[in-house]
Amino acid sequence: MKLKQHILLNFALVIIVFTMFSCNKETTTVSDSKKATSTSNQHPNLILTAQGVKDIRAQLGTIPVFDNTLKAVKEEIDAEIALGIETPIPLDYSGGYTHVRHKRNMIVLQKAGVLYQILNDEKYAKYVKDMLMQYEAMYKTLPLHPKTRSYARGKLFWQCLNDANWLVYVSQAYDCVYNYLSEEERNKLETNLFKPFADHISVDSPQFYQRVHNHSTWGNAAVGMIGLVMNDAELIDRALYGIKDLKLDTKEKDDDGGFLNKNGKAGFLANIEEPFSPDGYYNEGPYYQRYAMYPFLVFAEGLHNVKPELKIFEYKEGVLLKSINALLNLSDADGDFFPLNDGQKGMSYYNDALVTAVDISYYFGKQDAGLLTIASEQNKVLLDDSGLAVALGIKNGKAKPFEKKSINLSDGPEGKQGGVAILRNEDIELVFKYASQGSSHGHYDKLSYSLYEKGDEVIQDYGLARFVNIEQKGGGNYLKENKTWAKQTIAHNTVTQNETSHYGGKYEVGSQNHPDLHYFSSDNKNVQASSAKVTNTYPGTDMQRTVAVIKDEDFEKPYVLDIMKVSSDKANQYDFPYYFLGQVLNTNFEYTIPKTLKPLGSKNGYQHLYLEGNGKSKESNAKFSWLNKGKFYTLSTISNAKDEILFTRIGANDPDFNLRREAAIMLRRKNTKNTLFVSTIEAHGSYSPVSESAINSKSNIKEIKVVLDTVDYTVISITTLKGNTKLFITANTNASKEAKHTLKINNKNFTWVGSYYYK
Amino acid sequence: MKLKQHILLNFALVIIVFTMFSCNKETTTVSDSKKATSTSNQHPNLILTAQGVKDIRAQLGTIPVFDNTLKAVKEEIDAEIALGIETPIPLDYSGGYTHVRHKRNMIVLQKAGVLYQILNDEKYAKYVKDMLMQYEAMYKTLPLHPKTRSYARGKLFWQCLNDANWLVYVSQAYDCVYNYLSEEERNKLETNLFKPFADHISVDSPQFYQRVHNHSTWGNAAVGMIGLVMNDAELIDRALYGIKDLKLDTKEKDDDGGFLNKNGKAGFLANIEEPFSPDGYYNEGPYYQRYAMYPFLVFAEGLHNVKPELKIFEYKEGVLLKSINALLNLSDADGDFFPLNDGQKGMSYYNDALVTAVDISYYFGKQDAGLLTIASEQNKVLLDDSGLAVALGIKNGKAKPFEKKSINLSDGPEGKQGGVAILRNEDIELVFKYASQGSSHGHYDKLSYSLYEKGDEVIQDYGLARFVNIEQKGGGNYLKENKTWAKQTIAHNTVTQNETSHYGGKYEVGSQNHPDLHYFSSDNKNVQASSAKVTNTYPGTDMQRTVAVIKDEDFEKPYVLDIMKVSSDKANQYDFPYYFLGQVLNTNFEYTIPKTLKPLGSKNGYQHLYLEGNGKSKESNAKFSWLNKGKFYTLSTISNAKDEILFTRIGANDPDFNLRREAAIMLRRKNTKNTLFVSTIEAHGSYSPVSESAINSKSNIKEIKVVLDTVDYTVISITTLKGNTKLFITANTNASKEAKHTLKINNKNFTWVGSYYYK
Repeated sequence: MKLKQHILLNFALVIIVFTMFSCNKETTTVSDSKKATSTSNQHPNLILTAQGVKDIRAQLGTIPVFDNTLKAVKEEIDAEIALGIETPIPLDYSGGYTHVRHKRNMIVLQKAGVLYQILNDEKYAKYVKDMLMQYEAMYKTLPLHPKTRSYARGKLFWQCLNDANWLVYVSQAYDCVYNYLSEEERNKLETNLFKPFADHISVDSPQFYQRVHNHSTWGNAAVGMIGLVMNDAELIDRALYGIKDLKLDTKEKDDDGGFLNKNGKAGFLANIEEPFSPDGYYNEGPYYQRYAMYPFLVFAEGLHNVKPELKIFEYKEGVLLKSINALLNLSDADGDFFPLNDGQKGMSYYNDALVTAVDISYYFGKQDAGLLTIASEQNKVLLDDSGLAVALGIKNGKAKPFEKKSINLSDGPEGKQGGVAILRNEDIELVFKYASQGSSHGHYDKLSYSLYEKGDEVIQDYGLARFVNIEQKGGGNYLKENKTWAKQTIAHNTVTQNETSHYGGKYEVGSQNHPDLHYFSSDNKNVQASSAKVTNTYPGTDMQRTVAVIKDEDFEKPYVLDIMKVSSDKANQYDFPYYFLGQVLNTNFEYTIPKTLKPLGSKNGYQHLYLEGNGKSKESNAKFSWLNKGKFYTLSTISNAKDEILFTRIGANDPDFNLRREAAIMLRRKNTKNTLFVSTIEAHGSYSPVSESAINSKSNIKEIKVVLDTVDYTVISITTLKGNTKLFITANTNASKEAKHTLKINNKNFTWVGSYYYK
Repeated sequence: MKLKQHILLNFALVIIVFTMFSCNKETTTVSDSKKATSTSNQHPNLILTAQGVKDIRAQLGTIPVFDNTLKAVKEEIDAEIALGIETPIPLDYSGGYTHVRHKRNMIVLQKAGVLYQILNDEKYAKYVKDMLMQYEAMYKTLPLHPKTRSYARGKLFWQCLNDANWLVYVSQAYDCVYNYLSEEERNKLETNLFKPFADHISVDSPQFYQRVHNHSTWGNAAVGMIGLVMNDAELIDRALYGIKDLKLDTKEKDDDGGFLNKNGKAGFLANIEEPFSPDGYYNEGPYYQRYAMYPFLVFAEGLHNVKPELKIFEYKEGVLLKSINALLNLSDADGDFFPLNDGQKGMSYYNDALVTAVDISYYFGKQDAGLLTIASEQNKVLLDDSGLAVALGIKNGKAKPFEKKSINLSDGPEGKQGGVAILRNEDIELVFKYASQGSSHGHYDKLSYSLYEKGDEVIQDYGLARFVNIEQKGGGNYLKENKTWAKQTIAHNTVTQNETSHYGGKYEVGSQNHPDLHYFSSDNKNVQASSAKVTNTYPGTDMQRTVAVIKDEDFEKPYVLDIMKVSSDKANQYDFPYYFLGQVLNTNFEYTIPKTLKPLGSKNGYQHLYLEGNGKSKESNAKFSWLNKGKFYTLSTISNAKDEILFTRIGANDPDFNLRREAAIMLRRKNTKNTLFVSTIEAHGSYSPVSESAINSKSNIKEIKVVLDTVDYTVISITTLKGNTKLFITANTNASKEAKHTLKINNKNFTWVGSYYYK
């Protein structure tokens, strides 16, 4: 009887689905849909597959996340169809009407194609065909886009990049309606639209296409995907390996200051090879990884389907799938990506590119149950074979929490160009960046870190100076303050020497250098630690930074210990800011405020900082507390009487109000060769404006001290208000996991194995 | 069979409850609990009643919100009991240890008393007794609190106010354990603790007690509530009518600059009489109303229970219950109170005082189903008769949405001293303040407004300069910037004349004047409008402001029309700021930024503003767009070529970083007698950092124009980009609902009935 009920229920659901999707015209019947599948012999085969379409149709109405996504897409596209087709003559920059319209069209085409396949309703195929024909009519005589700002102008858009985006999506639409079109129609589209379109963004725009860069990845994917649909071997080849026999000037640069093609490499495979480390870290950082991800994965999916012999998902030891795991780990507790390098804050794994990433990773990877939880939160799946698998996994209750732990991600094609260490301890996350330059989107911020509590920024990375797609702000493009402020060293939580950025702020120098990991240790759950070194940020100056997030019974929450060791062959000025977010509470030192606010300097980012306060500490530790989003924080730093402590605020020389007026506290140490900056950051307590109660609003640290500092070891003592003292010893030279150390401190012998000691 | 199941289920629930609450000692049986009820003949009778206790016990385990609250309170108090009793010698200001401890103790005592009654477990009574005895032992020799900052020092706390808070809570605890104590114990407590405590905060501190002020309300309630428990007619009398035959100097002032007792009125009834308008608006504003609410309501509840003949809830036509409705309406879409006058942002109807207010309003009022929704959101009820009624209402599915509509709340004891109009239209809320001075917590901000969208501030009211209970910030008390900045006119969205605050910033003058309502009209759901006038803010200057929130088919969201009409007998400088929150997008006028930031002035709040930019408009409308929390806004204002447009930022002369660095755009019109400021504020579109799409990011208004401006009428035309023109005509003199108007504009006759015309 139960079985019978079950069957009846399923039957009812099927009825509902068919009713839901058949209100427009004649009823779609099962035999109809079977026919469609059998006639679509070779197509779709790019993303959707003939078998996938069959499976999807069979399960419709029983897989909530998939059904909901489908319903939303259907509503969205039906509304678009009702509005009619518009393919305006290209005119605008990002954010402008024609830009937005063509961008919208590519999405609409892709979705309409999918709907045609899944719902087997010809109105979607006809819509796709009609719009493609309009594009065909326009494109064959279309000149270069009238806006001239780009190093590689597109035709539909002001830059080739957007044209490539368009083709990546539209290839999928074309694949979906391929069999719906007559051969004549296909010839027309391929000859007048797709082929010349692919040529324009490749052979006609080699400065865009022929390099290792996220722009080129889009270009490669676009050319490759239309090549796969058209079954055009030449295009596929061009996509995988670049334009044949083309050599570019290796010294030319693009709009962002990146080399156009430094080493002559090009093509999709080179674009996998170069920017991804073996751990899957993408050298430009998570914001651009998210952006680049879509063409990487969607073209890989296409290659997997059409050219399985390439084994694309196993390429470079499966780096594409590894990179998805790396990317998900490069997000805070809310799923927002850390804004390393040029990253716009707020971008998160709720972005559609991550729906693609999560579904593909699940389907083509090891069916990680943690991914199902993220997919549930995304509440969306791809309308293809992979999305079906994910929706079924969720439906079958297979989801488990996606646990983010401390992780070290190497950078560089072989994992030997620094990296990013994320230290996680309870609700505290410290993002330690010792990565390489990060291509043209990199910042000069070696050994910097940012700090988070429960997804809220505590010590911020500024991110980029840009309002992506907001036309009023410089056409939605990079603002000049991105170079003059956001990329500069002083905009970051690390040491600036003599008011000059790392590597002299020179991309050529930055690209040839990188920090190196000294150690990363996450075995002891109470002490998550990492240390990295860098030479050459300034000639003759070496830096080593060791950071630890320590859970100690004397503290309410894990605290951060931060040791920056600087050695130089000459005396310098070191500036060391902490870009705290929130309201100043108090300090244990006196400071004065100026009558008028003046810029702190005239270049290298200093021109954008106002000096708001200036003090010196009489105590051995300078202490500074602040309040942010209902939580208290205290920075304690070992200070000497000559250290200047500056309060700065961003916003000077900012004629268009492009910068956020946010603050920093900055230590300034002048006329110093070798030195040690040692600080702790405590997160403590809370404040509620509703109950108006302030809990644990004060620091728990009585004093931090340098007990010993040699070439081989740095020893810091941390004494709490209770009077307990802990020692943190970091090994500065031999820090291997197995190394056995013995150190005499104040006549007491300390013996331990490993990179550091804490007790 | 169904009935039987139901019974079984209930039986099971009862078992669960008894198991839940009996894990500590012997099992509490039904007969035990009955005995306790029958012996507690007269007590409890203050807040809990003997009958109420009986009803509660009968329903325990079947009323989720009540049961959950009880469970949480039990866990909280059990944890406190486990920690032991501490009653330290008083020493600290707010936020310090002894302050926090005694404040905590009063809450714990009150809750432990309630637990004793409901759970009939003697451990709670014993705990209350033991702590009270410790207080008795300490209090009888306790000198004045050592901290001297208050105008009326307490004994347990640095100010009498906190002592009064303590007694309001502890009276309830005493009532709950009254019958548990022996007569001897009661005598001891009453003679050595309660009576002298009540005397200290009343006869010994008349400057605190004998006035109309929220401080005194607490004092009156404290004295009255302990009087009700002790059945002490003298104390009850003193509570209701003030200290007999006492006359105070009517010109003395308190710490905040308020008069100690301007008109000789005192006592609880006078405190109801004076500050509440007939609509229930509390003259200090919602933040203080929330604070004052608890003693008003809890003492009223006690009076209702013990002295029903007083009919306290009917006093002044039921103003106490009306005031709860007013208070709930003085919150934004998230339930946060509008920070009028000295109000700390973030205070909301989730505050415990509002749990009291909502439950009492429901129980003693008309069982408004909307209140049940708020109570559900609070997810807490009072553990008394009223809380039981609310929990039952929720359980029985009676809750309906609490709908907030446009509302006009008159101010003044008779409703004749201005008021506050809240205009609501879809997600837009405009809070138009034309209220009286607001006692010592008032700001000099006549005819100002603040603007909200979906609970987010768009044009902000700064609120107060204070971090309540955060000791590091001036002991948690008012900061000097509250007077020098937050109260000043220039800190608000209204007109400052000649860089001087309204009424010369003088409390005496402010208290004797107030704006007057011209009209309030919410009948047309598309046009919510209000107009108010004020004289005497500056001698010889009259102002009238008319605001409307208009839903028009040409606009995506309702837009604000803002008309400020100023007439003066001499030429003045008028400064008119808008404290927008968010990121500047762009302007249609050119401006320059200064090389160094200087304060805009030297006094009246101007010393706290930096000038960040300065421009003039060549167009008839100056336009300014900004982005806040993913939404776009545009201010369009009719400008003439001589108007200066200033960008300012708060934060100058702020040596302790007490002020938030927030911005304003300010219109400055010099050498002008009569003038009209006309602006629109559009909320439009959205931006998502996840999809990076900017929707409807631009203003929809082509031009606004003054078509006519006479003594009787002001006519504004609003032309949209589509080319449609609407007229808004406001009647400046006769604006009654019934008034019939005919006006010839450009040879066309306009005829309408009512305060305004829009078409």
